[in-house]
Amino acid sequence: MYWIEIIGTFAFAISGIRLAAAKQFDLFGLFIVGFVTAVGGGTIRDVMLGVRPFWFDDLMSLLIVAGALVLYYFFHKLVDRIAGTIFLFDTIGLAIFTLLGMIKALDMGCSAVIAIVIGAMTGAGGGVIRDIFINEEPLIFRKEIYALACVAGGLVYLLLEYFNFSPAVYRTGCVAGVIIIRLLATKYHWQLPKVKMEK
Amino acid sequence: MYWIEIIGTFAFAISGIRLAAAKQFDLFGLFIVGFVTAVGGGTIRDVMLGVRPFWFDDLMSLLIVAGALVLYYFFHKLVDRIAGTIFLFDTIGLAIFTLLGMIKALDMGCSAVIAIVIGAMTGAGGGVIRDIFINEEPLIFRKEIYALACVAGGLVYLLLEYFNFSPAVYRTGCVAGVIIIRLLATKYHWQLPKVKMEK
Amino acid sequence: MYWIEIIGTFAFAISGIRLAAAKQFDLFGLFIVGFVTAVGGGTIRDVMLGVRPFWFDDLMSLLIVAGALVLYYFFHKLVDRIAGTIFLFDTIGLAIFTLLGMIKALDMGCSAVIAIVIGAMTGAGGGVIRDIFINEEPLIFRKEIYALACVAGGLVYLLLEYFNFSPAVYRTGCVAGVIIIRLLATKYHWQLPKVKMEK
Repeated sequence: MYWIEIIGTFAFAISGIRLAAAKQFDLFGLFIVGFVTAVGGGTIRDVMLGVRPFWFDDLMSLLIVAGALVLYYFFHKLVDRIAGTIFLFDTIGLAIFTLLGMIKALDMGCSAVIAIVIGAMTGAGGGVIRDIFINEEPLIFRKEIYALACVAGGLVYLLLEYFNFSPAVYRTGCVAGVIIIRLLATKYHWQLPKVKMEK
Repeated sequence: MYWIEIIGTFAFAISGIRLAAAKQFDLFGLFIVGFVTAVGGGTIRDVMLGVRPFWFDDLMSLLIVAGALVLYYFFHKLVDRIAGTIFLFDTIGLAIFTLLGMIKALDMGCSAVIAIVIGAMTGAGGGVIRDIFINEEPLIFRKEIYALACVAGGLVYLLLEYFNFSPAVYRTGCVAGVIIIRLLATKYHWQLPKVKMEK
Repeated sequence: MYWIEIIGTFAFAISGIRLAAAKQFDLFGLFIVGFVTAVGGGTIRDVMLGVRPFWFDDLMSLLIVAGALVLYYFFHKLVDRIAGTIFLFDTIGLAIFTLLGMIKALDMGCSAVIAIVIGAMTGAGGGVIRDIFINEEPLIFRKEIYALACVAGGLVYLLLEYFNFSPAVYRTGCVAGVIIIRLLATKYHWQLPKVKMEK
């Protein structure tokens, strides 16, 4: 699980770094945007739960973002070419972060509904902060199902837990739920409806 | 008072949902923007005061935003037509949230000046976060008196309390102060001066 | 040191007020943007460390921002003319805030690396929030070395402390480090590299 978390952090960092590079930010800007994308969701969660940001006690996130930056700087053509693989990593990261958010929220006494909200915030929050930093409308408010996949995964978690499955089962179920919904949504271009505005 | 808070939450949610719909966000985006508009100010207040966001323990806010979303989705033409009424609700919400912010800040030992700042943040903060999320310059920095009405209401609160009026009086005074200033400012197009820039 | 902090707060406030005025925000908007520029970095630091924002207990920051606003409103041509001096103040503010952030982080048990991160956040965070509020891409991600000067100052601090120099020495060293790097970077247009994107 720790390794999967590292993969997710890496994928989130790369997604932030690529968008910042497209805006011609300098290397420091790339690092910051990569870092807030990777740890932003978890930081909001921790601040709201009243604990210190998780990356204060574990420098791994900082190191991964630095590594992603070095890699992207020297091999950005390669990275852009394997964007499909990166997308898969990103989806895995989304799922893992959602699960970690839910576990932490439930551990700290939050109700089921709030745990789902916090799970989705942990998974999708970094991308929203990233888009605010690069001065774009947050992508997740427009494109295909994204944060809703986190909500679905959270429901799977609670449902399986309710029926007394073991932690291994409902945690795997949560991660699988997020990944499957996200992949299906992308493949079949599922979109949430929009309100039609009259001119 | 609880009912008035519900009305205010609803009005704030609708204001966020309408602006997000104008940006062609999807339903999920509408929900998020409505939610941060409704609870954003109180969340900033709670995080700064070091307590958990108020909506962790009371799912009413989530439900109201969901209800506002359903209503807007099916009846958005109607909602747009009664925008004037919505504006009144919004003003009531602003006043109530300002009062709630001041009460909480004073309860938790903040000084009078900080209580006014926190009251204004609670009232007007959601609108600022909303505008950041939809990638617009915050409206309250440009248009007619808005957050300043919160400051005025806060002053009324402290003044009446200082002269030993009962809580019922100074709380009503605070709410009335915000509403009256805001309505007058809108009716007579009161504007704060701007610094004239030379070309 | 308290006086230098006041100078830094003033310079940060002016930088926010000037950018907000250029956007034709009203006086209240100028005050808010000046205030978040001046206290934003320290507020993020305090929220992450789990303590109340420093300006809750010391109204000096509020007063300085108010003073800067009055000054700018009446003498903005003069202020614009001495922009070079303001830049110097801003650099001093950056250095002082970085030092204050590091001291507070180390006091509260953070590791050396996190102390540097928090120092840089305290110094440079206000400018990022300012740019988000005025709906611009954060300047520090593009222009010459800025936040990296904070990191350099933080390294000087830790290095001198490691070799058992007295607090007076390593604190002065930290401030001097930030100022020197920032001034040199500006004078010689040092820039961090960017990733070259192919069309």
